[in-house]
Amino acid sequence: MTTLKLDMNCDMGESYGAWVMGNDSAVLPFISSANIACGFHGGDPGTMRRTVAAAIEHGVAIGAHPSLPDLLGFGRREMHITPSEVYDCVVVQIGALSAVAHTQGAKLHHVKPHGALYNMAAKDPALADAICRAIKDVDSALVLYGLANSELIKTGQALGLAVANEVFADRSYQPDGSLTPRSKPGAMIEDVDASIRQVLRMVQHQCVATLEGPVIDVRADTLCLHGDQPNAAFFAKKIRTALEQAGIVIAAI
Amino acid sequence: MTTLKLDMNCDMGESYGAWVMGNDSAVLPFISSANIACGFHGGDPGTMRRTVAAAIEHGVAIGAHPSLPDLLGFGRREMHITPSEVYDCVVVQIGALSAVAHTQGAKLHHVKPHGALYNMAAKDPALADAICRAIKDVDSALVLYGLANSELIKTGQALGLAVANEVFADRSYQPDGSLTPRSKPGAMIEDVDASIRQVLRMVQHQCVATLEGPVIDVRADTLCLHGDQPNAAFFAKKIRTALEQAGIVIAAI
Amino acid sequence: MTTLKLDMNCDMGESYGAWVMGNDSAVLPFISSANIACGFHGGDPGTMRRTVAAAIEHGVAIGAHPSLPDLLGFGRREMHITPSEVYDCVVVQIGALSAVAHTQGAKLHHVKPHGALYNMAAKDPALADAICRAIKDVDSALVLYGLANSELIKTGQALGLAVANEVFADRSYQPDGSLTPRSKPGAMIEDVDASIRQVLRMVQHQCVATLEGPVIDVRADTLCLHGDQPNAAFFAKKIRTALEQAGIVIAAI
Amino acid sequence: MTTLKLDMNCDMGESYGAWVMGNDSAVLPFISSANIACGFHGGDPGTMRRTVAAAIEHGVAIGAHPSLPDLLGFGRREMHITPSEVYDCVVVQIGALSAVAHTQGAKLHHVKPHGALYNMAAKDPALADAICRAIKDVDSALVLYGLANSELIKTGQALGLAVANEVFADRSYQPDGSLTPRSKPGAMIEDVDASIRQVLRMVQHQCVATLEGPVIDVRADTLCLHGDQPNAAFFAKKIRTALEQAGIVIAAI
Repeated sequence: MTTLKLDMNCDMGESYGAWVMGNDSAVLPFISSANIACGFHGGDPGTMRRTVAAAIEHGVAIGAHPSLPDLLGFGRREMHITPSEVYDCVVVQIGALSAVAHTQGAKLHHVKPHGALYNMAAKDPALADAICRAIKDVDSALVLYGLANSELIKTGQALGLAVANEVFADRSYQPDGSLTPRSKPGAMIEDVDASIRQVLRMVQHQCVATLEGPVIDVRADTLCLHGDQPNAAFFAKKIRTALEQAGIVIAAI
Repeated sequence: MTTLKLDMNCDMGESYGAWVMGNDSAVLPFISSANIACGFHGGDPGTMRRTVAAAIEHGVAIGAHPSLPDLLGFGRREMHITPSEVYDCVVVQIGALSAVAHTQGAKLHHVKPHGALYNMAAKDPALADAICRAIKDVDSALVLYGLANSELIKTGQALGLAVANEVFADRSYQPDGSLTPRSKPGAMIEDVDASIRQVLRMVQHQCVATLEGPVIDVRADTLCLHGDQPNAAFFAKKIRTALEQAGIVIAAI
Repeated sequence: MTTLKLDMNCDMGESYGAWVMGNDSAVLPFISSANIACGFHGGDPGTMRRTVAAAIEHGVAIGAHPSLPDLLGFGRREMHITPSEVYDCVVVQIGALSAVAHTQGAKLHHVKPHGALYNMAAKDPALADAICRAIKDVDSALVLYGLANSELIKTGQALGLAVANEVFADRSYQPDGSLTPRSKPGAMIEDVDASIRQVLRMVQHQCVATLEGPVIDVRADTLCLHGDQPNAAFFAKKIRTALEQAGIVIAAI
Repeated sequence: MTTLKLDMNCDMGESYGAWVMGNDSAVLPFISSANIACGFHGGDPGTMRRTVAAAIEHGVAIGAHPSLPDLLGFGRREMHITPSEVYDCVVVQIGALSAVAHTQGAKLHHVKPHGALYNMAAKDPALADAICRAIKDVDSALVLYGLANSELIKTGQALGLAVANEVFADRSYQPDGSLTPRSKPGAMIEDVDASIRQVLRMVQHQCVATLEGPVIDVRADTLCLHGDQPNAAFFAKKIRTALEQAGIVIAAI
């Protein structure tokens, strides 16, 4: 019998100067990979250094979390940007975090685009291509994290990148495999036990129930945890415990 | 008889978004190394890519030109900043440009701090140490460019870095080896022939006349050219021609 | 017989720190109103002060030129932004320039949105409403400049603002009154005499030929001049001379 | 018998985009004037609007809290900046917040420089002069808040501005009237009752004990409360209650 595996990832290092974001130190003990902001939506140089150090200390895989250039919008608002501009933005952000990791004797493990860039690249083949080529040109061994079954994942596979299909515990799915937009009722799964059941089903049976009813196929390589909620660490611990009790090994890709 | 050598360097890639700075393409044919802005005082990601490409095309050595975080002040105003903050800023800037160079099959050759950071590190041992350790920790093969005989150069040598003593053609010197501040009369050497004579003397006789009179020792490994003047290319060509006619080989360190 | 009138406006004060944009001092003698950047896409505080002073010196009406918050993109890229965010951005930008004008004994005369904000508001009623309410709430006497016949102009009129329909000399028109996108052939009118003929026709006959042929109605209150071209002052002078020779009075609204 | 009065002020609106700073809504019930960030060290346009609205709701006087242009450093690091640059920065920040207040039917009441600008202006007459002229030129009715007995206060008085001498409850004083630097032992007064005793003495007897012992004269017009501590509201309530029980009226200048 094969052992089932799942990576648990969380966005980290999104503080900026005097402003604090998230509960990084509380969540780190429960995850297996960290997506670290690289300065474009958060993550000043000092925060990058401290977050990399904390990830190393907890034995968590270090990933770059590149964003659109938008501090004020926290990288969450879509903007008109060319594939060439996206390519350039991703290259410099991976490079910056890679140097920080290198000064601490570590190497980058993966890249997960942030916010609006993640969402745009899930649907737009040209932006997906720009991101994947940037990753490949900087270091072809980096693993691409993206929405399960999205355009970004497909493009990464076509270019020969290792990919990690990302799934969500606290979001409901649509029949096409996309997440129900937050603006719609039923987008969020508030009940912790329901969240855990959704993840277990995705890992054990490679499928998920959609909001409207039909069950669809989904591949779950990595689970996204949100670190900026007050109960982030509590939820991370609870879901990790449930997964481990079900015999699932939590580890980076 | 030994052949005399000199590197000619120029700050490049300091445009930002829609704003253009300097005459990079006009100056590139006459220099041997380019100090390329890394985003903190100029140099958006697209400008970084295009400037690296132009440097490669002209066979010019590629260096990082890290700055204090100050777009509005173009990195030219001194600020209270801790050695730890300087270390972090230098690491991420070298990393960003290094990744851009890597995507184009090139490697970084040197690091020259920009503006206020250059001036502060010339005198402040703690900031000099922060810069040198950042360079060493990212890539100990990188050459440190700094004001000839400054605290920065001494610190780099003590830490085992290869260093390049930088001299100026168009600036007069003080008895302690520092440049006459721009605010004082006689700071600038306006006459091109006088500039050329100053450089030739520094390379051929390892000394320079100071504004007040006495001749002092100076080591000239690399000559700083200013690329943001209207006659930048004209001056670069004239001084290169004069140096070559005197049998001096122009080449990166 | 009524005297025909036209305002000639130009974007100004779009430099930022060490970076220079445009030929403001060369163009100022030929225009009647200046749209001055307020810091969100260009226009640092010192540039705002100097540009207001130059406008006063030339007797040119002073307008605020508010933008989306996007220095790197120079306010030219569209982004997802809520009407509430647009309202807030416009209020603070008008307020900032208004204070600068006040310290020099002057008052703001108009507001013209910049770049992507101008284009988005020409079509999007919610954003147009946000801009117009911001103007009205700060100072209901300010004149709104917008694309002739656009959603923005209609909204401003409905809210009781004085409006100025803006037309272009060097751009061709589409049958719906919009400008031919720059990406399409025939978007730019390169020939100076053709540009002048287009403007004369718009002022004298309230119509313009479209790229495809049919003539459409257009109201011309103010003409947009581009100040960032090398020949900006030459063109401004030529078109002003031609308009004045045709008996048209050049003056702010 | 004269009634003793004291203003209680707190820095507010220092959040930025997705990042939250301070406990504004918890502290507002206990203060009489709010110093609201204007975008240069915190305080995006939406935060400015919401903070002004909250101040109006609580009947708290609205002040501008202008800063050096330094988001990353939260306006806390000193930098080389000319008096002219400071003048320009203060003008636009007051103007921006003034417009926000105007859209809500309110007027600015005072100006208190932030962080490094506050500290630099307490000692440097040229910067103090730049700030005071900026305030006077924008609106000569605005009250200047500054460190009690500082260069800033003296300059404001000389220029005819109404001034408010600011004192601190939780900081110890030096014999020259300056605050003990935070880097030195004894800088902070941790004990709440000792803080209250210090404030009562300053208000009732116009003097304060210094860290070294001697009692010096001090004038207390306004008390600075820190809003970014976890117990900010608790402390604000306690100190207000103690002051009111001593018969001191808490009100804006």
